[in-house]
Amino acid sequence: MSRPQPPLRSEFPVFRTIGTRWMDNDAYGHINNVVYYSYFDTAVNAFLMESSGVDIRALPQIGVVAETGCTYFSSLSFPQTLEVGLAVERLGERSVIYRLGVFAQGAAQGAALGRFVHVYVDATARTSVPVPEVIRRAVSPLVIRTA
Amino acid sequence: MSRPQPPLRSEFPVFRTIGTRWMDNDAYGHINNVVYYSYFDTAVNAFLMESSGVDIRALPQIGVVAETGCTYFSSLSFPQTLEVGLAVERLGERSVIYRLGVFAQGAAQGAALGRFVHVYVDATARTSVPVPEVIRRAVSPLVIRTA
Amino acid sequence: MSRPQPPLRSEFPVFRTIGTRWMDNDAYGHINNVVYYSYFDTAVNAFLMESSGVDIRALPQIGVVAETGCTYFSSLSFPQTLEVGLAVERLGERSVIYRLGVFAQGAAQGAALGRFVHVYVDATARTSVPVPEVIRRAVSPLVIRTA
Amino acid sequence: MSRPQPPLRSEFPVFRTIGTRWMDNDAYGHINNVVYYSYFDTAVNAFLMESSGVDIRALPQIGVVAETGCTYFSSLSFPQTLEVGLAVERLGERSVIYRLGVFAQGAAQGAALGRFVHVYVDATARTSVPVPEVIRRAVSPLVIRTA
Repeated sequence: MSRPQPPLRSEFPVFRTIGTRWMDNDAYGHINNVVYYSYFDTAVNAFLMESSGVDIRALPQIGVVAETGCTYFSSLSFPQTLEVGLAVERLGERSVIYRLGVFAQGAAQGAALGRFVHVYVDATARTSVPVPEVIRRAVSPLVIRTA
Repeated sequence: MSRPQPPLRSEFPVFRTIGTRWMDNDAYGHINNVVYYSYFDTAVNAFLMESSGVDIRALPQIGVVAETGCTYFSSLSFPQTLEVGLAVERLGERSVIYRLGVFAQGAAQGAALGRFVHVYVDATARTSVPVPEVIRRAVSPLVIRTA
Repeated sequence: MSRPQPPLRSEFPVFRTIGTRWMDNDAYGHINNVVYYSYFDTAVNAFLMESSGVDIRALPQIGVVAETGCTYFSSLSFPQTLEVGLAVERLGERSVIYRLGVFAQGAAQGAALGRFVHVYVDATARTSVPVPEVIRRAVSPLVIRTA
Repeated sequence: MSRPQPPLRSEFPVFRTIGTRWMDNDAYGHINNVVYYSYFDTAVNAFLMESSGVDIRALPQIGVVAETGCTYFSSLSFPQTLEVGLAVERLGERSVIYRLGVFAQGAAQGAALGRFVHVYVDATARTSVPVPEVIRRAVSPLVIRTA
């Protein structure tokens, strides 16, 4: 498993701005590794809700998180404002694989590269279902070709 | 508004043990002021669920938090294990006022004193309702007489 | 202890915008009571760093949190954007008492009213010291007269 | 990238018990994907501090997190108590790769499988350094042979 390169702004079709919080910093004075995942979670779900125009939590099919990952390249710190780049590496029949880049505001090169996998399930039975049309339409513009 | 005294172990009928987490510490190397409220929230709700034997989140009446507060006396730090003392200052018709003490494990004197007010509402309509019987029975042993 | 009224926008000299996060919502689908305190913490410290132009964490005197409190009036929910109003109720010799209002973006009336008390200490010895001049200058414009 | 199998208890030399918190649950009523990483962070660092007997945060060489990842197999929920299994997949010259399993208390099969990579750096200069001896000794008993 080779370490990936830091992501570049040009690799992401869409960005969302995220403010850091005082408690995001840990005892070493930098944003704690855990907190990056709340940026991913927030960027993906806010994008879906805004782009689709629906409250995705109330849909009969919901996205549950099957896998996540992050490679950290450089540290960030409150009170920096961040930009999270979103792309879709794979829009599958039943899942969506996002690629996320965390950038200091205006930076060309990312401080972290994330992976976030949503698998769609029936909200009640929690059985696997196809990605709902409303989600498919929302994420289509994010699909990138990865080598 | 005069500053209260640090709480004593003897003031609390019940204790719950809570483990700290690495990210509870902030940039100053101590547990962040915000995190104490997650200890209160956790201690009260876990006590209610364990004592009542029911999943309080599924009851037709739920407790919503109307007010919280905390006075901090000394700092705590991961990886300390904590004990949270619970008492009920007032068991009202429609609300329960908890008094919470945060103690380093085994300490006689508390590091923080909390206040946590649950007001009961209909889970659907969110209108004020009496404290459900199952909750009233669970918290009765916590009621203390405060001067 | 009577319950205060919801705060109004007009009561706060300064506002900071804070984005909500997916995980701010709890099992009841609303922003958890604990998270409001991270908004207070963030608003106060970001204001101090921006207004003073210095990294307050590196000053020889730092503000430690002695007391906090919050009254909740109505619920908020991700993905709402929030505005936190800041005022100073009392600028003392050794402490600063902030009053904070949490507003849905553009709302005239606040969803929550907070209290946040910083006591200044020597960063090393942790003994009480006067509020540093750089902090005093930064918060002076926030001082309000409260009846 | 094929999805791994759920971890088994027998794969981990050491376990740490972690209590869940009310706010660990998200809007879907289950522990939020982000929070698993705070369990990893906490389990690794608490193990290191306990096993080594030193405050690792004060060492001249500290572990910074270079990469993390998690595969989620089944949901968990407050107020469950969890057990986090720790193993070391690779104890390198300058890094330690941990394998972590999150189990409901007493469960044979894990609900999540994590990866957590510490790279050691000089605490001041933040340049890469060998894994300190005190850390090497602490994690040696965790090293497993993975196929």
